[in-house]
Amino acid sequence: MSELESYAARVRGLVDDRLLELAADDDPRCAKPHAAVRHTLEAGGKRLRPILFFASCEVCGGRPEPFLDAACAVELVHTASLVLDDLPCMDDAGLRRGRPTLHVLYDEATAVLAAVAELMAAFELIARCPGIRRDSLARDMAAELARAVGLDGMIAGQQLDLDSVGRRLSMDEMEFVHARKTGALFTATARMGALAAGASGPEIQALEAYAKNLGLAFQIVDDILDATATAEELGKDVGKDADKPTFVHLFGLETSRTVAGELTATAKGSLGVFRRGAAVLGQLADFVLARKS
Amino acid sequence: MSELESYAARVRGLVDDRLLELAADDDPRCAKPHAAVRHTLEAGGKRLRPILFFASCEVCGGRPEPFLDAACAVELVHTASLVLDDLPCMDDAGLRRGRPTLHVLYDEATAVLAAVAELMAAFELIARCPGIRRDSLARDMAAELARAVGLDGMIAGQQLDLDSVGRRLSMDEMEFVHARKTGALFTATARMGALAAGASGPEIQALEAYAKNLGLAFQIVDDILDATATAEELGKDVGKDADKPTFVHLFGLETSRTVAGELTATAKGSLGVFRRGAAVLGQLADFVLARKS
Repeated sequence: MSELESYAARVRGLVDDRLLELAADDDPRCAKPHAAVRHTLEAGGKRLRPILFFASCEVCGGRPEPFLDAACAVELVHTASLVLDDLPCMDDAGLRRGRPTLHVLYDEATAVLAAVAELMAAFELIARCPGIRRDSLARDMAAELARAVGLDGMIAGQQLDLDSVGRRLSMDEMEFVHARKTGALFTATARMGALAAGASGPEIQALEAYAKNLGLAFQIVDDILDATATAEELGKDVGKDADKPTFVHLFGLETSRTVAGELTATAKGSLGVFRRGAAVLGQLADFVLARKS
Repeated sequence: MSELESYAARVRGLVDDRLLELAADDDPRCAKPHAAVRHTLEAGGKRLRPILFFASCEVCGGRPEPFLDAACAVELVHTASLVLDDLPCMDDAGLRRGRPTLHVLYDEATAVLAAVAELMAAFELIARCPGIRRDSLARDMAAELARAVGLDGMIAGQQLDLDSVGRRLSMDEMEFVHARKTGALFTATARMGALAAGASGPEIQALEAYAKNLGLAFQIVDDILDATATAEELGKDVGKDADKPTFVHLFGLETSRTVAGELTATAKGSLGVFRRGAAVLGQLADFVLARKS
């Protein structure tokens, strides 16, 4: 087992346990929204972002465990974004992480409300996390996360992506979409982990560059898998991007694979500033490139 | 002009100016989500919650102006909740604040994304507000707001309200819905204003009781107006609650008016703890009861 595998298994265990606690059910009048949130959290997933948070904190000399709730906050925001992406008015997807999507299992309103509840839980977790001892750190993390998702972040990327159906995006626009749809949350996650460790400016910058390139590579690999893998392999609908001007449509599979490889190499190159402890982040980049789902 | 009228006009001016700054447009690639958010913020509205924030802060001896961004955060959350309430999968409303709703003007995806952007802007505003000097206060305000909206707050109320269509709610369930759909944000707003002022325990409790009863009265008056006023008067669709077991359906118009009056009186009664400066809050309660839109 590689260092990443055991590391990832440990982080996943912590995150999964904590996330399920959040949607525990005690009042029958709230049973449905709780069950809906649990459905999206029980489905597992790679938990890449919490792993990135932990590894970013650790490579800067921090101990990430007290900040578990901040890592869970990032995963909650990511899960909410998947619920919304899958809505009929967006990608209209019926399958996610191998299970029916929320609007299929319940209805659209329940899906929208569950996503909002997850976003709110994220900010409440950061605000109340006892392991975040410095109040200013809680404040910085919340600002970081809100900006990554907000009007000039993931929202802007998702909007332009949706509006690109059936038309040709410029290379600049495509980079804009990728940087915001995936890159913004990756970068915010790495920065939050670094901030938790009290990292230095050069360390934060290195992790930002790493996460930015990792995010772009991740999105290109996503486009490749959407074009080449089966729904069974991915646990989600495929071919959803058929009408969108993805990287694969613009440049073909071969060039896309080359560019994803180059971005991954660039990401790993940014880790040179760390004298030790960067093995997990290096292997995470390799995993993102080689993943089959 | 009553004290409330001039007070409200002043707060509205500050809030409207600040909110419009937030969705200023500089990057053409983000033009659409910015325009969508601006559409919902330009429409005005009563700005009841920012007024409640300001007056709650002031009655506890605080100066609210430095906390304008926190008041705007509450209004952003409220605006987002209206955008989502109006979606086809929820109340399916075409008119709000006298203007077409966002999913009518654009499409559902744009509406959902604008609402999420507004929620994120709210938490970013609180985190970055320079007037909130104590970091622990920013943290407490964010926790307060996130909890009011979240899985056991507004979300739970909205879910149960939607699921009540065509069936009979118990009195307990109806109170649950009202307390969460409207009351939770009113209470959080008053508490945030009090926290900003460094209020004492008894002051916070008095404002909590005031806001809770004000919220319930507000919701009953909403039900009354939905049953009796025209869309032109309200600036929003009416009769949307025809299939829902509202307070008016359960108890009739006359009893509803009586109960709303009693709740308003109880709210005003809670203000006795303040020796001075409670006139605006008293007049606000009267306004909520007498409002025609």
